[in-house]
Amino acid sequence: MSKTLKTQRSKTSKQVETPIQPQTETNEQPLVKTPRIQIICSQNDLSTNLSLVSHAVPQRPTHPVLANVLLVAEKKSQQVHLTVFDLSLGIQTSFDAQVRSGGEITIPVEILSDIVERFPQGDITLKNQAVAGKPGESEEMVESLIATLTADSGRYQVRGLSAEEFPRIPEVTAQQAIHLPAETLKEGLRGSLFATTSDETKLILTGVHLKLEQDTLELAATDGHRLAVLQASTQGIAAKKKQSDKTDDAALSLSFTVPAKALRELERILEMRTSADPVALYYKKEEEIVAFHWGKQRLVSRCLEGQYPAYPELLKHDFKHQITLEKAPLVKALERIAVLADKKEKTVKLYFNSEDQQLSLSMARDFGEGEELIPACISGESLHICFNIKYLLDAVKAIRSSEVQMQLTSSDGATIVVPFGNRDKPHVLMDVKYLLMPVVKETR
Amino acid sequence: MSKTLKTQRSKTSKQVETPIQPQTETNEQPLVKTPRIQIICSQNDLSTNLSLVSHAVPQRPTHPVLANVLLVAEKKSQQVHLTVFDLSLGIQTSFDAQVRSGGEITIPVEILSDIVERFPQGDITLKNQAVAGKPGESEEMVESLIATLTADSGRYQVRGLSAEEFPRIPEVTAQQAIHLPAETLKEGLRGSLFATTSDETKLILTGVHLKLEQDTLELAATDGHRLAVLQASTQGIAAKKKQSDKTDDAALSLSFTVPAKALRELERILEMRTSADPVALYYKKEEEIVAFHWGKQRLVSRCLEGQYPAYPELLKHDFKHQITLEKAPLVKALERIAVLADKKEKTVKLYFNSEDQQLSLSMARDFGEGEELIPACISGESLHICFNIKYLLDAVKAIRSSEVQMQLTSSDGATIVVPFGNRDKPHVLMDVKYLLMPVVKETR
Repeated sequence: MSKTLKTQRSKTSKQVETPIQPQTETNEQPLVKTPRIQIICSQNDLSTNLSLVSHAVPQRPTHPVLANVLLVAEKKSQQVHLTVFDLSLGIQTSFDAQVRSGGEITIPVEILSDIVERFPQGDITLKNQAVAGKPGESEEMVESLIATLTADSGRYQVRGLSAEEFPRIPEVTAQQAIHLPAETLKEGLRGSLFATTSDETKLILTGVHLKLEQDTLELAATDGHRLAVLQASTQGIAAKKKQSDKTDDAALSLSFTVPAKALRELERILEMRTSADPVALYYKKEEEIVAFHWGKQRLVSRCLEGQYPAYPELLKHDFKHQITLEKAPLVKALERIAVLADKKEKTVKLYFNSEDQQLSLSMARDFGEGEELIPACISGESLHICFNIKYLLDAVKAIRSSEVQMQLTSSDGATIVVPFGNRDKPHVLMDVKYLLMPVVKETR
Repeated sequence: MSKTLKTQRSKTSKQVETPIQPQTETNEQPLVKTPRIQIICSQNDLSTNLSLVSHAVPQRPTHPVLANVLLVAEKKSQQVHLTVFDLSLGIQTSFDAQVRSGGEITIPVEILSDIVERFPQGDITLKNQAVAGKPGESEEMVESLIATLTADSGRYQVRGLSAEEFPRIPEVTAQQAIHLPAETLKEGLRGSLFATTSDETKLILTGVHLKLEQDTLELAATDGHRLAVLQASTQGIAAKKKQSDKTDDAALSLSFTVPAKALRELERILEMRTSADPVALYYKKEEEIVAFHWGKQRLVSRCLEGQYPAYPELLKHDFKHQITLEKAPLVKALERIAVLADKKEKTVKLYFNSEDQQLSLSMARDFGEGEELIPACISGESLHICFNIKYLLDAVKAIRSSEVQMQLTSSDGATIVVPFGNRDKPHVLMDVKYLLMPVVKETR
């Protein structure tokens, strides 16, 4: 740079001076006559509902329409329905709007959401734009898949795709509904999701196994090295329901495995939710599809195929050692020790010192080492055992009680971690068990 | 997984059962006799001061010792000094501690900082560990570079390196000090740093140019496409100083370019600071080193070599057009339009409509387009001009006033953006100017 700054030359495209015309070369789809949509809604409603569904859109959609949200405007009910569906996971939500003219269109959800959330509070008008300068065009049908958003000082046009291309979410409401308290579902997901694997090759282990028997919901998750099993009572819900739901919740026994991705979305949405109304669960065995409904929203997911591991037998043990210790200092100590862990080495060594009634946690690396000593109530003889520190920390953090108890028999066998002492929300989860397999030294 | 979960086998290392011994094979350094350090300090002091210096540590240090913090414990003053230095940028801080035995050691700063911040509030003991079982060893000198931290239930040992290997930060306090109000410095950095380039090949443009003349501080930054120039008065500071500083701030005229990395650290630290005391600036021309001192802390940086572009002439223009508009709606509109921008295309088109006294901002892409209309006070004829939306948004957001004014002559010449109307903190910065070069269409 000498005396003058460089003028920037646009490398990418010629300046587009006219509004988008559906007939330009870049328009890949044929023109279709589509009903004219015209809705007025609040920025807050549109933005909130878009953020609810937009997370479910796949990162790399296999078909362009899967990156879009299906917007259905219903004049009769004065409702707008939004749907995203990646062929496995679908989320649907509805809200009130002034629907002046109903219809369907799909719009790229990310860009729509990004624009709408930046609009100020107030009314937004959304319609599909009629192609300008076409005399004699019907007022009800427009040859355009361009959605036009108008609010405040701005006017945005986004090219959509025909609603006909959008895959429909399977219907499961013909099934019996099982009503689950939202709090139970939230706590169950919080306590199990972390134990699933993100390794897609492990197929069924990428999901949480749900088992519904009489008045009990059981959730189980494992990645092959650790296992989470949580039980909750669904009793008392039936009584709260309307008489018309009488046939529901009959002596059912269902079990299926739901992808963690879908359940993480469910957890996120339930966290955002303010209502305490129960969530209705529908399961369609023939198609292996599960649906969760609440208020004007629902989440539908395909289940994972295959036989879930027979985990209940793993929990049937007589343990020689029982160690009880306070949760808070154990979490803090593990978090400090974990500073020494990295991708190469994650093994924390535990020594239950029966004589001193003390647990020693230690990790030794070539660059340093650490040891933490925590008072513990230890039954049985002293014992060494090693764990992946992440798995131990995950389990202890997930436990909702003032103390935790570890139950084990030997250094190379399974350890079970359970809540102990004062429990938070004891009414929500009846039983919580985390099973951890130890890290054993290589035989030399 | 069948009925049993897999036991985890540690793939990486054999279980290390004994504490680290300096003589193990992994110990790369020779043993040196080093003074025994023993300090007791508060967790809060150590953690805060470590977080202050730790950011300056290079990601990929050219020598292992540069990933360490130099810890100097002074028994006489009962002070602990921490220093990091990547050979270009150095940060030093001191705090009170019970120094039972003084000395120097360097410790990997990241791991030390990670452990210390996880300790509960209270006292931490830090010493270099004597090698166990060496009879007749002197109490003052220990053959060990292992730092031992003890607090609460935990005890951590981290392998350090000899303080002798640590490069010393150049001294610049022999120079005249220039005192700058902290607020002026903060606002100056906030308003200029964003306009520097992160492209290392542009050398001097990766820094902010500081010019000190009489009672004025000028900061300039440019990446070749845009330029920020800010002026502040340093007057009134001299009067507040002690009589002993009389010789300072003489009729000086200094100019030098400081790397943005160093100034971002300075900005971060000044933001954390609560004191309003001025910052002392020292500049050593021979070695091109600048230092900022405040309280018990200082930041030292090498300056960038080379001639800074002669930018003042760029600002001397007679502009035909002046456009004044409210800042807040302009920022909001640009943020919405920016949703349409991506890596490929960042050009926003502005049309100053003199007749309607309105600014139109628009961007057209193949997937959609947007237009925003904002009332503006426009002098001169109507005009089209295109900008990189990021540069325009950066400049408008950096301006601290209720309105902004754009001054320009033609679609292919420079535009200057300046504050207008009610200014925030008018006492801090006297003059703020952002120059933007337009994006021009390729000649066909």
